[in-house]
Amino acid sequence: MNLSSLSFFRSLRKDNQQFAVIGLGRFGRSVCSSLHNMGYQVLGTDVDEKRVSQALTDQLVSHAVQLDSTEPAALKEAGIFEFDTVIIAIGNYIQESVITTLNLKEAGVAHVVAKASSEVHVKLLKRVGADHVVYPEFEAGCALARSLTKPAILDRFDLDTENSIVELIVPDEFHNKTIAELKLRTRYGLNLLAVSHEGKFEINPDPNRRLLKGSAMVVIGSNKDINKLPI
Amino acid sequence: MNLSSLSFFRSLRKDNQQFAVIGLGRFGRSVCSSLHNMGYQVLGTDVDEKRVSQALTDQLVSHAVQLDSTEPAALKEAGIFEFDTVIIAIGNYIQESVITTLNLKEAGVAHVVAKASSEVHVKLLKRVGADHVVYPEFEAGCALARSLTKPAILDRFDLDTENSIVELIVPDEFHNKTIAELKLRTRYGLNLLAVSHEGKFEINPDPNRRLLKGSAMVVIGSNKDINKLPI
Amino acid sequence: MNLSSLSFFRSLRKDNQQFAVIGLGRFGRSVCSSLHNMGYQVLGTDVDEKRVSQALTDQLVSHAVQLDSTEPAALKEAGIFEFDTVIIAIGNYIQESVITTLNLKEAGVAHVVAKASSEVHVKLLKRVGADHVVYPEFEAGCALARSLTKPAILDRFDLDTENSIVELIVPDEFHNKTIAELKLRTRYGLNLLAVSHEGKFEINPDPNRRLLKGSAMVVIGSNKDINKLPI
Amino acid sequence: MNLSSLSFFRSLRKDNQQFAVIGLGRFGRSVCSSLHNMGYQVLGTDVDEKRVSQALTDQLVSHAVQLDSTEPAALKEAGIFEFDTVIIAIGNYIQESVITTLNLKEAGVAHVVAKASSEVHVKLLKRVGADHVVYPEFEAGCALARSLTKPAILDRFDLDTENSIVELIVPDEFHNKTIAELKLRTRYGLNLLAVSHEGKFEINPDPNRRLLKGSAMVVIGSNKDINKLPI
Amino acid sequence: MNLSSLSFFRSLRKDNQQFAVIGLGRFGRSVCSSLHNMGYQVLGTDVDEKRVSQALTDQLVSHAVQLDSTEPAALKEAGIFEFDTVIIAIGNYIQESVITTLNLKEAGVAHVVAKASSEVHVKLLKRVGADHVVYPEFEAGCALARSLTKPAILDRFDLDTENSIVELIVPDEFHNKTIAELKLRTRYGLNLLAVSHEGKFEINPDPNRRLLKGSAMVVIGSNKDINKLPI
Amino acid sequence: MNLSSLSFFRSLRKDNQQFAVIGLGRFGRSVCSSLHNMGYQVLGTDVDEKRVSQALTDQLVSHAVQLDSTEPAALKEAGIFEFDTVIIAIGNYIQESVITTLNLKEAGVAHVVAKASSEVHVKLLKRVGADHVVYPEFEAGCALARSLTKPAILDRFDLDTENSIVELIVPDEFHNKTIAELKLRTRYGLNLLAVSHEGKFEINPDPNRRLLKGSAMVVIGSNKDINKLPI
Amino acid sequence: MNLSSLSFFRSLRKDNQQFAVIGLGRFGRSVCSSLHNMGYQVLGTDVDEKRVSQALTDQLVSHAVQLDSTEPAALKEAGIFEFDTVIIAIGNYIQESVITTLNLKEAGVAHVVAKASSEVHVKLLKRVGADHVVYPEFEAGCALARSLTKPAILDRFDLDTENSIVELIVPDEFHNKTIAELKLRTRYGLNLLAVSHEGKFEINPDPNRRLLKGSAMVVIGSNKDINKLPI
Amino acid sequence: MNLSSLSFFRSLRKDNQQFAVIGLGRFGRSVCSSLHNMGYQVLGTDVDEKRVSQALTDQLVSHAVQLDSTEPAALKEAGIFEFDTVIIAIGNYIQESVITTLNLKEAGVAHVVAKASSEVHVKLLKRVGADHVVYPEFEAGCALARSLTKPAILDRFDLDTENSIVELIVPDEFHNKTIAELKLRTRYGLNLLAVSHEGKFEINPDPNRRLLKGSAMVVIGSNKDINKLPI
Repeated sequence: MNLSSLSFFRSLRKDNQQFAVIGLGRFGRSVCSSLHNMGYQVLGTDVDEKRVSQALTDQLVSHAVQLDSTEPAALKEAGIFEFDTVIIAIGNYIQESVITTLNLKEAGVAHVVAKASSEVHVKLLKRVGADHVVYPEFEAGCALARSLTKPAILDRFDLDTENSIVELIVPDEFHNKTIAELKLRTRYGLNLLAVSHEGKFEINPDPNRRLLKGSAMVVIGSNKDINKLPI
Repeated sequence: MNLSSLSFFRSLRKDNQQFAVIGLGRFGRSVCSSLHNMGYQVLGTDVDEKRVSQALTDQLVSHAVQLDSTEPAALKEAGIFEFDTVIIAIGNYIQESVITTLNLKEAGVAHVVAKASSEVHVKLLKRVGADHVVYPEFEAGCALARSLTKPAILDRFDLDTENSIVELIVPDEFHNKTIAELKLRTRYGLNLLAVSHEGKFEINPDPNRRLLKGSAMVVIGSNKDINKLPI
Repeated sequence: MNLSSLSFFRSLRKDNQQFAVIGLGRFGRSVCSSLHNMGYQVLGTDVDEKRVSQALTDQLVSHAVQLDSTEPAALKEAGIFEFDTVIIAIGNYIQESVITTLNLKEAGVAHVVAKASSEVHVKLLKRVGADHVVYPEFEAGCALARSLTKPAILDRFDLDTENSIVELIVPDEFHNKTIAELKLRTRYGLNLLAVSHEGKFEINPDPNRRLLKGSAMVVIGSNKDINKLPI
Repeated sequence: MNLSSLSFFRSLRKDNQQFAVIGLGRFGRSVCSSLHNMGYQVLGTDVDEKRVSQALTDQLVSHAVQLDSTEPAALKEAGIFEFDTVIIAIGNYIQESVITTLNLKEAGVAHVVAKASSEVHVKLLKRVGADHVVYPEFEAGCALARSLTKPAILDRFDLDTENSIVELIVPDEFHNKTIAELKLRTRYGLNLLAVSHEGKFEINPDPNRRLLKGSAMVVIGSNKDINKLPI
Repeated sequence: MNLSSLSFFRSLRKDNQQFAVIGLGRFGRSVCSSLHNMGYQVLGTDVDEKRVSQALTDQLVSHAVQLDSTEPAALKEAGIFEFDTVIIAIGNYIQESVITTLNLKEAGVAHVVAKASSEVHVKLLKRVGADHVVYPEFEAGCALARSLTKPAILDRFDLDTENSIVELIVPDEFHNKTIAELKLRTRYGLNLLAVSHEGKFEINPDPNRRLLKGSAMVVIGSNKDINKLPI
Repeated sequence: MNLSSLSFFRSLRKDNQQFAVIGLGRFGRSVCSSLHNMGYQVLGTDVDEKRVSQALTDQLVSHAVQLDSTEPAALKEAGIFEFDTVIIAIGNYIQESVITTLNLKEAGVAHVVAKASSEVHVKLLKRVGADHVVYPEFEAGCALARSLTKPAILDRFDLDTENSIVELIVPDEFHNKTIAELKLRTRYGLNLLAVSHEGKFEINPDPNRRLLKGSAMVVIGSNKDINKLPI
Repeated sequence: MNLSSLSFFRSLRKDNQQFAVIGLGRFGRSVCSSLHNMGYQVLGTDVDEKRVSQALTDQLVSHAVQLDSTEPAALKEAGIFEFDTVIIAIGNYIQESVITTLNLKEAGVAHVVAKASSEVHVKLLKRVGADHVVYPEFEAGCALARSLTKPAILDRFDLDTENSIVELIVPDEFHNKTIAELKLRTRYGLNLLAVSHEGKFEINPDPNRRLLKGSAMVVIGSNKDINKLPI
Repeated sequence: MNLSSLSFFRSLRKDNQQFAVIGLGRFGRSVCSSLHNMGYQVLGTDVDEKRVSQALTDQLVSHAVQLDSTEPAALKEAGIFEFDTVIIAIGNYIQESVITTLNLKEAGVAHVVAKASSEVHVKLLKRVGADHVVYPEFEAGCALARSLTKPAILDRFDLDTENSIVELIVPDEFHNKTIAELKLRTRYGLNLLAVSHEGKFEINPDPNRRLLKGSAMVVIGSNKDINKLPI
């Protein structure tokens, strides 16, 4: 997580109980549904009447209203300018997404999160004042590429550019050895955090426990050290 | 990561040096570009001639060819059936994506990864044999919702349904206290893994180090215990 | 009729009095109209409002309702899931036809018959669970080709791969001979089942009857023997 | 088979070795493929260049040419007027189908077979001189309706309006009885022609043979008598 | 006027007081407006609602109704089948025009006049039973060509293939001569019927009257003789 | 024929041997074909390449060229400005027709004839300088209306607003009477010009000839007198 | 300003209090808004219902009505013919703009101003009677070109083809000199009219005042003399 | 002219000999043509091939190239980044115009002038860095409104918000009076700069000259004083 994102998240109000989501396509619906399921009030809007009623039928939102978000008057009338945090989920229409962002920032909305669909879209959103930009299809593509090329690495949590936590499949060489025997800290400079057993993880596992092929383990350390593992 | 994915990733060949990506939209381009940057051979295809030449111009792929992936003969002629792993990145055209998946599995391709754009799309891909299905806009929407509602939680790594590793902003209550004073293991049942300082993380930090507002910390433990933190 | 079809037809309830037909194009209208004329209750549906009202105006159905069959909720609300047998007559829209089939089978409809429009469509329908697939334009094309190339064979009933019943124009060589004189069983290994006279067939005709050019005869026997007839 | 069809088929040349098929959609492809597989020369045409090359690629035809069949000059140049039998497989474009039929009959083509897509299409084709009209989606719909409502009747061959040959599943009442015991001729006025055993039919089966549930039998007789069977 | 047209016009009822016109484009509007201005009842129909209301607004018709004339039920409900004479003015949609003609003739309408837009359209209309076919753009083109190439001939009335009545500009050679001096009958075999003077015609003009350049004259005679005039 | 048309036709060059026709739709093709058949040189143009080559294939023109007639440079390059008479046959595109007329008149073309498709089109063409405007669909509609309402009048040649020549079916009352007996001049003020016999007209028929039902006669006289005839 | 414009503006009524504007695109909206802000009554019309209500919402007009201005009846019903001055702001639809102009002039509207979008559009508008034609995109393009190439000339007011008033940036050579020292009239034949100081202009400035770099000055004189200035 | 524009024009290089114009619609063509006529080198570009060749044919530019200006690589390859001043004349496509502006400013082009089509477009262009924005249809609309409401004011040159130079029609009250008699400076506080005579202006006219109705005069002064003139 880069520094500008860090400051964005730090500025969010923790007692915020409501969100507005503009654009009810795949991504917008997913945001609405997650927020609503967690118990927050969500106002959804879209320029397309059908998507608005679909969102209500599918109970993704608390309220929903059809409006053209490129019209400041429409946003005002719907009360969107009163929200602390607004998510602009209009990924496929660059112009509409950029004008909506401009409208919200000019009206003083504190936190505007926008979804981008290309690199130039990212730039434009930042120029008109978006506080946080997500670009999911790009990020998901990168993540899939990593998984496919390092299949032993099941998941990865980048701490900074040099250190990570990784979940990996137990290497063949470690099979049937106890944690104590492996001496991960001595030989690799890594700390073992957890080991899976039948789909559950044991945190701080017993050093006498034997690792088995096909189960997963989680380690923390520098990338340089992680790359030395026999995977 | 669920069990079926685990077995999928376990089955991937670790010495695989080449991939085919079908569909050169935003997601497909991102997959190609990541793989190619990591040094793998990537064959990209799309039904649209312009996207094919764009991918070559932008050097996202080693080779690229225009073809209609719903035609088995076209896939065969382009040698796609010889690949061990093929990524179907045709998210917006359900029918074309499903037929392409069918074609690849009938021709014996070992690992077929497909991108879905709706829940029914996920089901259809599985019915026709896709080995792994990703649904990025849905997943990204969920992730954003979590970030916005738990802004102190900067990132989260779910070990299983009960345990996680989380990166969080140092709570106000912890400000200026030493790690030793906090007694995280005793009071919360959590282990502190790392602490950030000016954008870098220190693993296994010194117990006398003081935590400061605005920096980040990483802990491991059960979700129940994590939820007790004063965030 | 192949074995899988045989078991499908065997599984149909004989006292079934009602059917649902999804898709009111040419084929769907023909199915509705035939069933309705035979006295069965028929519920017809289509996504196009105009086709729905046309079916009612033309009295092809008992009831008709506009709905989008790719939406499980719409199918449920219309009561389609309560039917024992549903015919999916959406030939031209592969995706819609396949999703509808998936919806019906997931909801537990016992007998789902679907019309295909291509070979890949046949495969997809079977993958998602269709119990019986018809592909009329393909079958009609084959039948016409046979008629045009063997014009003396007016109709043909394939018993199995080796035996058939065929209706044929009386060959010139048989003209004015009695059935007894022809010795069909002795010379050709065939049994004569019926002979036409002015558009009516006589079953088990009198052996002294004379066959005449331009009338038709029906024989049973092996294909090998049938091919020896002087036609 | 009605009388006008009878005279049409009687007029076809038996030594005809070549056919032209106009329209390479689903039905036209099926006709071409069947004829070509039987060893006949087939010339296929379509107004759409892509369909023409697809037919050649898929080896459905001996020759294929792109042309607009509503233009007499185009038909003449391609030599279509020299054919004895031409099949017009342009079902979805009534106007084009009707004008093509007119062109062929005005140019003296002896046998013109055309596919219709509605009742008014059937009428128009006959008005402009089509020698034989097929309407497969209508006929297939009727046939499916019959199968679904009389599932015990597996197939049916209508001799005339009063007599038929039918293949039916052995009724429960007949299970384990010998053919002699059943006295089909005496009790029902029907002749038993064949009995299936493991997917094969035995013609003129031994009267001592026992009929078994789940196998099929073929009888000939009047419809009135057939309807008395316990099915 | 050819013979078949002659018999068509002879068969029209002289006391007919009402007409139906199907199609309210330029030609149809012109027919309606002329008939309505002459005091006849006119029912106008079109498939396009806007054209129907425009015709009422512009007072071109007594009544007007929106309907799809390819549907026999719609024609019947609107009472079109009760008319003695119906004009089909759907020139640009061959299929609709032909099916409408078929519908009207099948329903027994005595006089069906249809507008054609091409030669093949003329043929199709006659095949499905149109009693009279007009093809105005073709005819107007021919007439304009004649006017432009024989500018001295102002108008022409063809009696049969050999004789005509023509209105022509007085040739320069005839200027200032009396009718008697010209001896048209003796020298050209023509009869002079009328001479114009200031926009009015004098029938059977005085033989002493002088013809003047720029005025018009009307003669009757054989085409061969007319062509000898010094024009 | 009104006065302005009279002066237009008077101004045409009698020795003109060539024409340009802009627009190769139905009307334009008819003009081209008539002129070309009469032996004149015709240059045809259209903005649509297909129509241009069709006109050449169908031998309607001496030369043909694709051009956009709203571009003065294109007209100039094709030499259209050198023609004495140009026919603009672009009836359906008012704007293109009006701009083309403007271009031709600005470039000094002496005689520009244009086809109109509505009353406002007629006005615009005259405002931009068209020398002669034809409006065939309107005129043909009027003519048909007259024929249908006065079916005994087969054709009519209006000399001026008060006098006409008409061809009519011999009235029942005149049947079997000699011309002398009828005393047309005395009783009706009309002159009999010709009488038809088996499709041919006899000019100045013998006064002893008998008129027969079903044949045609041609008279000249005032409209007031013509209306007194027993038709 | 050319002479025909001069006479147009002279003919406008000075006490005119109301205007009609046809076409509510960018230009039309700008005209409406300016007039309305100056306190005049403005009636706005457009063929597009949405633009009409937008103009009312944005308070650009006193009244607004949806109508098709190519229909004289619609213009009449809305009272447009009663206006003394009508602005036709339909720049992008040449045909509609020209027909509307024709309609207004035929109905006797005294002053019709129309916006053109091309040179041929200018000509057509004048042919059908427009009293004044503006062509803003052309004029704005010319003005921008002048500004960019003579950046020292900030604005220019052309009196006639030989004399102008120009506002220019004080040339470097004039910096810090008094007006008296410059002797503009003697050396350049120009009169100095005004000098700017902090965004305000002083008319007839004191001859002892010093000119400073970066401020502006206004002079009047012949173009020949202006071109001699050291800019 | 506002202050920011002033600084923009001051920053332009006076010896600049070449310009690039992106977008060859009406406005862009006008800019190109003006610059090119003044002798500057102009490179024109458009995404539409036809507009590019039209600009060359019409000799509006020195060079022209087809390119998509939203692609930085395309701009670079065409050398656009080397220009000192680029005009973006893509008024109707907000997104393309904004991205192009971004591309040019990111690449370091010193002077970017862009045409806007709405108020939000103006804002976006400024956000992404445009140095100067023109909005001609808005400005032309305002200017026309002023002319129509103050018809005696023929043209107006706003010096600042309080002072102007205006060209006006000589008021009726001034008719036939000498300049000396009018005492404009004494009575109105205005200076008379020029008087027209037959379309030419005389600067510093003779005080004994008489003003005549219908000619024009030019005065300088404060708006307050100008408004007191009897116009």
